[in-house]
Amino acid sequence: MVQVAVMGYGVVGSGVVEVLTQHVESIAKRTKEEIAIKYILDIRDFPDSPFQDKFTKNFEDILNDDEVKVVAEVMGGVNPAYDFTKRCLEKGKSVVTSNKELVATKGAELLKIAKENNVNYLFEASVGGGIPIIRPLSQCLAANDVIEIAGILNGTTNFILTKMIRENMSFEDALAMAQRLGYAERNPAADIEGHDASRKICILASLAYGRHVYPEYVNTQGITKITLEDVAYASSWGGVIKLIGQVKRLEDNTLDITVEPMLIEKNSQLANVDDVFNGILVRGDSTGDVVFYGKGAGKLPTASAVVADIMDCVKHLNKRKYLDWADGDGSIVKPYPETKYPVYIRAESDYDKQTVMSKVSDLFTNARAIVRANAEDKEIAFVTDDMTVNSQLEAIEALEKEGIKVLSKIRISDL
Amino acid sequence: MVQVAVMGYGVVGSGVVEVLTQHVESIAKRTKEEIAIKYILDIRDFPDSPFQDKFTKNFEDILNDDEVKVVAEVMGGVNPAYDFTKRCLEKGKSVVTSNKELVATKGAELLKIAKENNVNYLFEASVGGGIPIIRPLSQCLAANDVIEIAGILNGTTNFILTKMIRENMSFEDALAMAQRLGYAERNPAADIEGHDASRKICILASLAYGRHVYPEYVNTQGITKITLEDVAYASSWGGVIKLIGQVKRLEDNTLDITVEPMLIEKNSQLANVDDVFNGILVRGDSTGDVVFYGKGAGKLPTASAVVADIMDCVKHLNKRKYLDWADGDGSIVKPYPETKYPVYIRAESDYDKQTVMSKVSDLFTNARAIVRANAEDKEIAFVTDDMTVNSQLEAIEALEKEGIKVLSKIRISDL
Repeated sequence: MVQVAVMGYGVVGSGVVEVLTQHVESIAKRTKEEIAIKYILDIRDFPDSPFQDKFTKNFEDILNDDEVKVVAEVMGGVNPAYDFTKRCLEKGKSVVTSNKELVATKGAELLKIAKENNVNYLFEASVGGGIPIIRPLSQCLAANDVIEIAGILNGTTNFILTKMIRENMSFEDALAMAQRLGYAERNPAADIEGHDASRKICILASLAYGRHVYPEYVNTQGITKITLEDVAYASSWGGVIKLIGQVKRLEDNTLDITVEPMLIEKNSQLANVDDVFNGILVRGDSTGDVVFYGKGAGKLPTASAVVADIMDCVKHLNKRKYLDWADGDGSIVKPYPETKYPVYIRAESDYDKQTVMSKVSDLFTNARAIVRANAEDKEIAFVTDDMTVNSQLEAIEALEKEGIKVLSKIRISDL
Repeated sequence: MVQVAVMGYGVVGSGVVEVLTQHVESIAKRTKEEIAIKYILDIRDFPDSPFQDKFTKNFEDILNDDEVKVVAEVMGGVNPAYDFTKRCLEKGKSVVTSNKELVATKGAELLKIAKENNVNYLFEASVGGGIPIIRPLSQCLAANDVIEIAGILNGTTNFILTKMIRENMSFEDALAMAQRLGYAERNPAADIEGHDASRKICILASLAYGRHVYPEYVNTQGITKITLEDVAYASSWGGVIKLIGQVKRLEDNTLDITVEPMLIEKNSQLANVDDVFNGILVRGDSTGDVVFYGKGAGKLPTASAVVADIMDCVKHLNKRKYLDWADGDGSIVKPYPETKYPVYIRAESDYDKQTVMSKVSDLFTNARAIVRANAEDKEIAFVTDDMTVNSQLEAIEALEKEGIKVLSKIRISDL
């Protein structure tokens, strides 16, 4: 019998308790050990909970109980989760988590502390909810050099974009609907501004390339500026707009890492990942493209990933898993202005279209106009070949000096 | 430095040697050990190979060399792979393999021998080539009760069906093309008769449900009887025909396990898995549907999965991974005639359509006619609701007594 503690009794935490108690026999069979919950930490009261006797408001109860071998940190946020995690690891307890913010900002340090104390720090649930991705990436694809990872990593924004694409719903209406359905928080900033996806691509990049990539070095744009006009142009171009978290290793060994909306061709594996689903593509030098698909969030999917990590820790008490990366700094990331990609641009002006396209052609690499039905006369849109972000911005500035106003600029993906 | 041996220098074996030698540094970094190939076993000569000094024709060289800790068995077939694997495990060497035939027919026994000798027997490459599935199923989804697994597990047949669906190519022409492109063997029986897919679903079922399911208990049909008429009816019904390996746990705790062509709705996650790609859907009670997608075969994808297993063995020398299942017998499988599903049937007769459909309606549960363009007058097709296979066959017999000849009968999937 192994005793565990669950810190945080929110959506994921209550799911962890549910999965652990409802699968108690099959879990015992697979781990060869029964797993029992000794404590649930939460500052709130849950008078109607059947787990009354397990609740505590005092973290020290967990910390100082040597019987507790594994702790699930499902509180979210950096504080106090960081402090609690650190102290548990230092006390020789393994910690598992769904807390992507903490892993993305403190992962290297916490992994190091885990190593020093011969315990494990696992976080399968931090990316892709119930979709297996951390273990496949670190173990099954270990014999590959990872060329690229690209994913739809945030279900809320994917739901909003799907509504915009499929039902021509405005961003505001789609967001309101996501909030009504419980897919978006009342304060949706972490999702719609891209921070959630940014944390996840940082975790995947750190794992794939062995050095911690911090969110502060990652260009992060959300979907708040995407309009139905852009959606229509993407469609006539032959694709869809998706919020993509992406990392690839460049020839100079720096990483092109970004979270931003991208135009994706319709026949790409990620183009059909819709609604609240997540899809993650890993391009290995040996294995080619492998795609993982499923619900990226939600109580039970995420909880089941946390519990799988608990089971792994129980099977590896006093043995180290080889999940590990070194600390890193900004030098491993290519400065975003120097990254290079083709771009879609939408603009408006009072010139006739031919005049605009002639000016555009002078400034952008191989610009081709694209059209949509019911466009206003003064609207124009085009796509280019590869240009650095710097040269895109210079060209846009020059265009605006000519009185042509740029309304949208969206990266075109090579997926 | 850990010494390994590779048994079999065919497509996969030469790929394993290539991946091990070309990634030697990154592999050493990840396993904290350098991995060196000491022997390559093959009865053939490879005078031009740069690995001349490693070749041996004598299995005993490997068996009796205590320096060899891990052996990759990539010979294929049951004999002599079974004997070699058994003896290596008994000698305290871990074995990894891509040999689905051996795992499907001797898995329980070999896993038991591995356990008794405190070594590992790993086979990530046996299903899905380079797609991670064995580890995700046994570890990441461990906290789930697996409700169902369904997959496109064989790239060759999927290529043939894709050509039939997309280009209206006949089965024979598509097979010939697959052979020309090297996707199908000169003797394609194992692929087109469904045996390859059957071995793979047996492995997945054994892993998910904890008891060995042998291929002999699995209803196994290939795609040789699928015609372009069926493809056209599937399309007008709103789907495609795919060769699916599927297992689900029934209420009486037996398994409905089968390999057969199925009609799949167009919006199913597996309907768009085309060409030589594989897709595997795992439905868990907590995590919902998770889909794994990628190239299911090929030299480097498969080899990289074998090498990932080698790396895992090197990291777990003298430690057991928890990959394990008990022996099983036919009693865990629902007899196929008692399984229940809706079915598509194509028939011909000289009666007028109304007369035929009236006879059909008397015999089949909720039969609905479906149509296709350019059908001959005497052709008729319909789909039903759930019926046991037994009652389907009885109804077909009665129909044929009335002079209505049944040409095709294909399961309709609930995916």
